[in-house]
Amino acid sequence: IRRTPFKMCSRSMASKTPVGFIGLGNMGSPMAKNLLRHGYPVIATDVFPESCKELQDEGAQILDSPAEVADKADRIITMLPSSPNVIEVYTGPNGILKKVKKGTLLIDSSTIDPSVSKEMALAAEKMGAVFMDAPVSGGVGAASLAKLTFMVGGVEEEYTAAQELLTCMGANVVYCGQVGTGQAAKICNNMLLAIGMIGTAETMNLGIRLGLDPKLLAQILNMSSGRCWSSDSYNPVPGVMEGVPSGNNYQGGFGTTLMAKDLGLAQHTATNTKTPVPLGSLAHQIYRVMCARGYANKDFSSVFQFLREQEEEPEKKGD
Amino acid sequence: IRRTPFKMCSRSMASKTPVGFIGLGNMGSPMAKNLLRHGYPVIATDVFPESCKELQDEGAQILDSPAEVADKADRIITMLPSSPNVIEVYTGPNGILKKVKKGTLLIDSSTIDPSVSKEMALAAEKMGAVFMDAPVSGGVGAASLAKLTFMVGGVEEEYTAAQELLTCMGANVVYCGQVGTGQAAKICNNMLLAIGMIGTAETMNLGIRLGLDPKLLAQILNMSSGRCWSSDSYNPVPGVMEGVPSGNNYQGGFGTTLMAKDLGLAQHTATNTKTPVPLGSLAHQIYRVMCARGYANKDFSSVFQFLREQEEEPEKKGD
Amino acid sequence: IRRTPFKMCSRSMASKTPVGFIGLGNMGSPMAKNLLRHGYPVIATDVFPESCKELQDEGAQILDSPAEVADKADRIITMLPSSPNVIEVYTGPNGILKKVKKGTLLIDSSTIDPSVSKEMALAAEKMGAVFMDAPVSGGVGAASLAKLTFMVGGVEEEYTAAQELLTCMGANVVYCGQVGTGQAAKICNNMLLAIGMIGTAETMNLGIRLGLDPKLLAQILNMSSGRCWSSDSYNPVPGVMEGVPSGNNYQGGFGTTLMAKDLGLAQHTATNTKTPVPLGSLAHQIYRVMCARGYANKDFSSVFQFLREQEEEPEKKGD
Amino acid sequence: IRRTPFKMCSRSMASKTPVGFIGLGNMGSPMAKNLLRHGYPVIATDVFPESCKELQDEGAQILDSPAEVADKADRIITMLPSSPNVIEVYTGPNGILKKVKKGTLLIDSSTIDPSVSKEMALAAEKMGAVFMDAPVSGGVGAASLAKLTFMVGGVEEEYTAAQELLTCMGANVVYCGQVGTGQAAKICNNMLLAIGMIGTAETMNLGIRLGLDPKLLAQILNMSSGRCWSSDSYNPVPGVMEGVPSGNNYQGGFGTTLMAKDLGLAQHTATNTKTPVPLGSLAHQIYRVMCARGYANKDFSSVFQFLREQEEEPEKKGD
Repeated sequence: IRRTPFKMCSRSMASKTPVGFIGLGNMGSPMAKNLLRHGYPVIATDVFPESCKELQDEGAQILDSPAEVADKADRIITMLPSSPNVIEVYTGPNGILKKVKKGTLLIDSSTIDPSVSKEMALAAEKMGAVFMDAPVSGGVGAASLAKLTFMVGGVEEEYTAAQELLTCMGANVVYCGQVGTGQAAKICNNMLLAIGMIGTAETMNLGIRLGLDPKLLAQILNMSSGRCWSSDSYNPVPGVMEGVPSGNNYQGGFGTTLMAKDLGLAQHTATNTKTPVPLGSLAHQIYRVMCARGYANKDFSSVFQFLREQEEEPEKKGD
Repeated sequence: IRRTPFKMCSRSMASKTPVGFIGLGNMGSPMAKNLLRHGYPVIATDVFPESCKELQDEGAQILDSPAEVADKADRIITMLPSSPNVIEVYTGPNGILKKVKKGTLLIDSSTIDPSVSKEMALAAEKMGAVFMDAPVSGGVGAASLAKLTFMVGGVEEEYTAAQELLTCMGANVVYCGQVGTGQAAKICNNMLLAIGMIGTAETMNLGIRLGLDPKLLAQILNMSSGRCWSSDSYNPVPGVMEGVPSGNNYQGGFGTTLMAKDLGLAQHTATNTKTPVPLGSLAHQIYRVMCARGYANKDFSSVFQFLREQEEEPEKKGD
Repeated sequence: IRRTPFKMCSRSMASKTPVGFIGLGNMGSPMAKNLLRHGYPVIATDVFPESCKELQDEGAQILDSPAEVADKADRIITMLPSSPNVIEVYTGPNGILKKVKKGTLLIDSSTIDPSVSKEMALAAEKMGAVFMDAPVSGGVGAASLAKLTFMVGGVEEEYTAAQELLTCMGANVVYCGQVGTGQAAKICNNMLLAIGMIGTAETMNLGIRLGLDPKLLAQILNMSSGRCWSSDSYNPVPGVMEGVPSGNNYQGGFGTTLMAKDLGLAQHTATNTKTPVPLGSLAHQIYRVMCARGYANKDFSSVFQFLREQEEEPEKKGD
Repeated sequence: IRRTPFKMCSRSMASKTPVGFIGLGNMGSPMAKNLLRHGYPVIATDVFPESCKELQDEGAQILDSPAEVADKADRIITMLPSSPNVIEVYTGPNGILKKVKKGTLLIDSSTIDPSVSKEMALAAEKMGAVFMDAPVSGGVGAASLAKLTFMVGGVEEEYTAAQELLTCMGANVVYCGQVGTGQAAKICNNMLLAIGMIGTAETMNLGIRLGLDPKLLAQILNMSSGRCWSSDSYNPVPGVMEGVPSGNNYQGGFGTTLMAKDLGLAQHTATNTKTPVPLGSLAHQIYRVMCARGYANKDFSSVFQFLREQEEEPEKKGD
């Protein structure tokens, strides 16, 4: 994996200049705290005053709008729920680009459509700024422990500058290519993850119905060509593994709603690039139905539970 | 994985008594040769005289029918293309069960419906014989090199006796449980394999369309939760890995027709046990369509090629 | 549609000879009563004594086994739940073929795998008897009112003889071709029905979400190319049509379990003939999941309810 | 179906004032000609000079940009390939909204995402203009013969004004509700159409494999619950019906690429509204694969051909 470790950039100085942070939700807040912990002054903003208050108590300076943050900081990280928020925060009436300084580095860690990342990069470039997409893998826990994985897309010359900040918040930083490829990598991984998880759930369920012991079946799969992350590291069948959501009634982990959102992004990009993704598409639909049937907040491995028989019911006669 | 290593059985004697072998096709022939190599006298039969001739030249005794083999050997291995062949060879007018001796060990290495294995076991039991299912993983190459994996279902007391023979032909022998569970394990593994392969092909294709380098994308997936055997050991994208069929125009490997056959078995067992397998079912359909569209004899990783754009064609106006 | 109206057969005499009837369940019982109503002496049997008692009270003669019925009647109708029952009743130790007389007409109205129909026809032919498959469309209500549709497969020369009896129990009798084609026609129709129903449910749901009035949307579809039986005669959205199960909390009608069974047969025949049926296959899986999620006994149009949002749930943050 | 027949609007005068027309492609050109035929002066523009020239010869006035058209006409119809074109033509630097006059009626007959229609309506409203979506059903032939069906969304008060123009170009004009519902109706219809077509192709193929005569099978379906527009009016099996593309090597009709585009829109709206559409989604994928495999320009009923066996190929042995 290509990384560009030794390049220097005028922005990444020995003395730490302030870093802007916009979006202080469940993920953004611990990420910003890790920057503070590494000695970076943080200038932040969020639409929710409580979130701002909390970070202010940790030592951050709070401003009223993204534009004002852009006026004060030449490195800004954004962490927002979805594409419309990103568009608003960057190009809205009080958005970053209203006051961004030439040469500012803009790093967006939201998970959004790669085509929106490209649009933002273009808009930033017109203002003389640099935009990179750097979505994360790993949840709230990884964010707190600075163990996130960042997948970074953007101009390679600026990667070292981004890396300096991202390594304060994550354990892995991977350079993926031109702008948008960070999003692409994340979306691709999560699509294959969803397919592997549903496939594992179906397979384990079928094997159990055919008389196989679930632990034995998992062992056989994991030493064979059926092996995948969902079978060997996150098995969806209660009792097969310890320390995974299937052992805890599918609490915690990565929620079905979030998986459905990422699969929606995968579907959007596949549709827009005319790429056939039959299993990815069906995986999306299955998680969508699960959201409609009460599984929205369970871990995405609960698809095993969703597919199991609920109760035996007698057949009725008819057509 | 439970194995029963130290049990003894009157049949597994120090002096090697003859072993029957029925079904001398691409797989059966090298398997029988490996028994000969280990010093077992082999008494064989097959519907094709040439196959018999070839094994005769290697030292095997050839008889005219399964019934005659059963008359001479008290350990018999069968390796046949599909369920109807197995039914015929065991219960047909010249079948094994016509002349099987009490206490004979019958090992079927064909890949068939587990419910047929159970039927055969029942029929064998009525004659005082023991039937075990022991389908294999690994192709013709593994058969020649005695590197097959056997997944064994049947009475646990007889497993050691079966193991003695199977270890002459394979590198791994796994005890799966009651009769039929060997088939179940194989079918489950191959269903998940098919899902993982198609998922990997879709994901790699989507990532490439989104601007990611295929090797880099494979690396990212393989260090993340998208990882699976198809992404890290058998990548379907030409140029990503060496020594796999994708690097050789999808020649060799495991043919699409055979995968379609195994997915058909998975679908049958899922339907019969009323188990939902949405992705397994769609994977079956995709390999079925591929068989209809000229991919029958290519390796099953050619699904990547199948999903790729063939040529750009202009849009026409209309409804 | 080809029918063979004027051929005569020695069995279809002016004076009504006894008709055998095997399988007196929810469907078979009213069918047998309609034969009695038309003046045919009925000789019947069933595994449940109560069912026999009830028909005896209506004037039928009850015997102990299919073999005994075959000994007394030279026209026999069977109406059984599934393939194994049919195999047992025809070829079992007390089965019809044990005592069937040469020239007997055997009509099986069960819905089963066409390949089993062909096997039964072959077995009957060996005994000098004639087997026809004649599955029905229409439920218990249609059976009572003699308004069933029969789809008949078998030797064309015998069709008139079958028709004489079937017209007593149904409003439509259609000759489909060689043996097994009656089953094929039924399976094909129900597969397309399931696809149309799920498609209609998805479409109506999507339209409603997009702001369309459901009645208006149904009207637009029904005057356009989206029109199908499920949209114009059995709309799954409550309130759009009257007199259909969607207006009665999906009670009555054609149960999800039965649809899942028929789709299982369609899947089996498709797999066995190597025919790709991607939508049919997914429809099967959807009805299979519905059976697992509490919809087993609801009308199959309840797929609309299954796909609807259950409740709004808040999103949680995470990976 | 609600229509608002008698309302009057100041714009729909007895004397015919000029109508603007933007987008003179395969569909737009014959539509504009029909306006000319009905005596409306037409002021048009298009990016392709040849298209403009052709309409000029028929008597239209040609201007350089949408803005200039908006300066001269207070009723404007747009007919464009996709959402980005619509956004450009309405809100671009030379777009309609740069010079639109208060009270202008804007009718967009493009097939696009309903959410874009809503955006355009909002932008138009800010300028004091009225935007309606009115996508069409029917191809180039229907456009020439003024036999299109228009599905209209927008403020009900303006519907009569729109209807006056649309009836010059179409045989059916249906009011669907608020802005965007015209698009919604079209997308819904085409999604169900695609599902019905693929389902019909699968079913006919399966029936033929099971020994049914295709014409007979079509008749049985069409008198039963499997009936749909694709089975009774546009059967995809060559030889079953006359005057449909299946009888003409799938030439003409509604191209696979266009169906794939509409299914992409359906998928987008379903994803955005979190609506599960499993069959619609799979139908989209199937048409997407077909585009990749050489069926892009064939009629969408060619899915029958796509699913058929290409050639018999021998099975090889292996895993």
